[in-house]
Amino acid sequence: MTNYDDLMGFVRETQALGAVAGRLGWDQETMMPAGAAAQRGEEMAAMEGVLHARRVDPRIGEWLAAIDPAALDDTGRANLREIRRSFERASKVPAKLAAALARATSLAHGVWAKARAAEDYDGFAPTLAEIIALRREEAAALASGGDPYDALLEDYEPGTSGAEIAAMFDAMRPRLVALSDKVLGAERQPAALTGDYPEAAQIALSTEVAQAFGYDMTHGRIDKAVHPFSSGSGADVRITTRTDSGDPFNCIYSTIHEVGHATYEQGVDAAHRLTALGQGVSMGVHESQSRIYENQLGRSRAFSAHLFGRMRAQFADLNIGDAEAFYGTVNRVRRGYIRTEADEIHYNLHVMLRFDLERALVAGDLDVHDLPEAWNNRFEADFGVAVDKPSNGVLQDVHWAAGLFGYFPTYSLGNVYAGCLHEALRRAVPDLDGQLAAGDSSAATGWLREHLQQFGALREPRDTIIHATGSEPSVEPLLGYLEAKFSELYGL
Amino acid sequence: MTNYDDLMGFVRETQALGAVAGRLGWDQETMMPAGAAAQRGEEMAAMEGVLHARRVDPRIGEWLAAIDPAALDDTGRANLREIRRSFERASKVPAKLAAALARATSLAHGVWAKARAAEDYDGFAPTLAEIIALRREEAAALASGGDPYDALLEDYEPGTSGAEIAAMFDAMRPRLVALSDKVLGAERQPAALTGDYPEAAQIALSTEVAQAFGYDMTHGRIDKAVHPFSSGSGADVRITTRTDSGDPFNCIYSTIHEVGHATYEQGVDAAHRLTALGQGVSMGVHESQSRIYENQLGRSRAFSAHLFGRMRAQFADLNIGDAEAFYGTVNRVRRGYIRTEADEIHYNLHVMLRFDLERALVAGDLDVHDLPEAWNNRFEADFGVAVDKPSNGVLQDVHWAAGLFGYFPTYSLGNVYAGCLHEALRRAVPDLDGQLAAGDSSAATGWLREHLQQFGALREPRDTIIHATGSEPSVEPLLGYLEAKFSELYGL
Repeated sequence: MTNYDDLMGFVRETQALGAVAGRLGWDQETMMPAGAAAQRGEEMAAMEGVLHARRVDPRIGEWLAAIDPAALDDTGRANLREIRRSFERASKVPAKLAAALARATSLAHGVWAKARAAEDYDGFAPTLAEIIALRREEAAALASGGDPYDALLEDYEPGTSGAEIAAMFDAMRPRLVALSDKVLGAERQPAALTGDYPEAAQIALSTEVAQAFGYDMTHGRIDKAVHPFSSGSGADVRITTRTDSGDPFNCIYSTIHEVGHATYEQGVDAAHRLTALGQGVSMGVHESQSRIYENQLGRSRAFSAHLFGRMRAQFADLNIGDAEAFYGTVNRVRRGYIRTEADEIHYNLHVMLRFDLERALVAGDLDVHDLPEAWNNRFEADFGVAVDKPSNGVLQDVHWAAGLFGYFPTYSLGNVYAGCLHEALRRAVPDLDGQLAAGDSSAATGWLREHLQQFGALREPRDTIIHATGSEPSVEPLLGYLEAKFSELYGL
Repeated sequence: MTNYDDLMGFVRETQALGAVAGRLGWDQETMMPAGAAAQRGEEMAAMEGVLHARRVDPRIGEWLAAIDPAALDDTGRANLREIRRSFERASKVPAKLAAALARATSLAHGVWAKARAAEDYDGFAPTLAEIIALRREEAAALASGGDPYDALLEDYEPGTSGAEIAAMFDAMRPRLVALSDKVLGAERQPAALTGDYPEAAQIALSTEVAQAFGYDMTHGRIDKAVHPFSSGSGADVRITTRTDSGDPFNCIYSTIHEVGHATYEQGVDAAHRLTALGQGVSMGVHESQSRIYENQLGRSRAFSAHLFGRMRAQFADLNIGDAEAFYGTVNRVRRGYIRTEADEIHYNLHVMLRFDLERALVAGDLDVHDLPEAWNNRFEADFGVAVDKPSNGVLQDVHWAAGLFGYFPTYSLGNVYAGCLHEALRRAVPDLDGQLAAGDSSAATGWLREHLQQFGALREPRDTIIHATGSEPSVEPLLGYLEAKFSELYGL
């Protein structure tokens, strides 16, 4: 056994244990009996203890020092890169701080949920302040003198920076605000879906659509949960969905979204499984997969025509008369308070707001007590509506309670990447619409698998997109797509 | 922190990790997508590696040496006893041997299943021989000069011996054979259930019955699996069941059986959770709970009358006319090849056969190649029927493929203990039948919880039964119960 083999063997076991811990999270959201919560907390903490000890195991440092990268192939060097990043990150954060953060964010979830239900921001503020203080301490340890926010961003999107994200948003914001104004002022406005849609039929249709988009049920399963998510890597990638009898799109499009995440994980080359390359490379690239499936493909005219037929077959009483009207309905634009319910135009405006605020919080330029006012002012500026209550504003997202600072911008990065990929995909598969209209997305999934998904974390995030599309990422394809799609749809 | 606190904290984490590993097994049988099997094997092996390292951690030896048991209460001393037993057991077996056994038994499952399907004992014999050789090596390491079979038995039923089990069976066998002959020769023979019973209604009725027997669904759940089992301890104890549209008793009584195991685990005092006392104390005592629920309570005249009413409400076309005939049907005695389908009289005869054969295999007195002949001769002697094929004989059970030598006798020990507990329960709750007839088993579960279940592994297995019943375990209550019940039922 060489040092490299020893290191890879050790990492493989850690990856397997990480998969076990991840599945414990899946079980908690889908299967766990209510009375098991306290014991589950101890189980999760014990697994986290095992994983943390392995992540900072000094043997990793010794192996890394002893291995000559020149003797390895590209895959070997990429594994070293990812292992080194993880080891250095884990080693920089004192165990005591990591434990304090785990405890604080674990408790914060309940505090946030209670505060949101009671519309009581003040009940959450001290907890939020504590989490920000801990994350700032962590960011300082990670940044080694650099920008603390960049250090946090690195957890979710290696290789980018707050300044780059800010520049990206500067290019997007005026065009999105202008497009929103135009679309909302248009004479032609699509109808909303009304009626009642039995839950079992929603699940059946979503399962059919999931498989049509390439989700492999022999390496996954679909269950119900309060929040849709995708969980797991390699041979066992599970998704969840939810149902709302008045809104079948919630179930169908959240399923397509999660299928995007899940097919990425399922599509990684089996040779990378249980290695440091065996997952999606970053949150942004991950979100590019969920978004292109959900929006560029799932809300296309072609696929929505197919979905219209399937929905008429499943549900008797659709109030939408024809496929063209249905296409309008699934792409209906509204100004809403809630990010997760936002349409393609407004979604990124929601994210920009959070990015600017969390960057100021981490920098110490914004105090927790001034956050609601800053949120509300910014929301009114971008959306033209005053926030009516905290649950529609600053308390709507769980992310900050979970300590996720630096995570929000990866959503928009994913949208931008999806725009780039979509442009390249259309070039490569000229008849894509013909296939989507028949409910067949195998050409799209095949192209994404061949050019992006199979590589897992082989290349850095930005290089992953460049490799797939052949060019530097840019906001232009996304903005051009949105302007063309919605101008046409709203008769502008 | 004292040494005792440190030790208990360490064991608590190990218990939590053991619960995670156990739930991984549950997931594999109930939820895992088919294509995930190979990856799951690596996940299980990684968890086993973590657990093994903790079980032999030298700090446990140091803590045990440093703690003064006289400074502890009964609970503390019982914890030490169980921790010491586990530590010494794990430390005696070389890691290489433990790994070889894990690998061999893991592979053996597939070999056995294939051989059974093909009626090909010779295809399984080399694998069985390898497992026996490894278990003999392990037994020699554990026995330190004593009887190797006793050392294996100790894994499942601490404090008993092969000689004690043999004496127990010597007392049982002639009376069971005589009772079998009498019952099968009787003029009065109950009818079998016929008809078709929709699966969903079977599950609904079994779930109702499970809760009536005290199973707490806020700390558990019921799913389908190929083989019924109970999994987990403390706050999260899950059971599985199966359905056969022609035989609803399969679903209902296997559920009641697993509920016996599960209520034992759910009934352990919450103060013992995640300690070395937080589970059922032995396989024999565990089986006493599943058996008393399934047989002495579940197949009683009183409860079967209640079940008859519930089945008539759920299923229109029962072919059984009245509650008394139904009582005969649920207690129908037949000579069958298969242990898991055996009635109360024949079940222990099945176990005796396996006990004698596996004891001879471990002692080296019986060669693997002579096993089928030995099985078939013994079966014909006890059951009066020739074995027609390996799947009805020596290949029917998975236990030996799993390396479980010394496990079978705990089934009969459980029956004997159930007999003792049932006698004491009837004394303590004179109106038990009145309650069971109303579908209410709370007095029975309450008595078992108060006198046995709550203590977990506080006392050694035999002492656990003595504490609950007030007297030494004996075969008499079980045999007396069987003779009285079946003589009356068959008009003898």
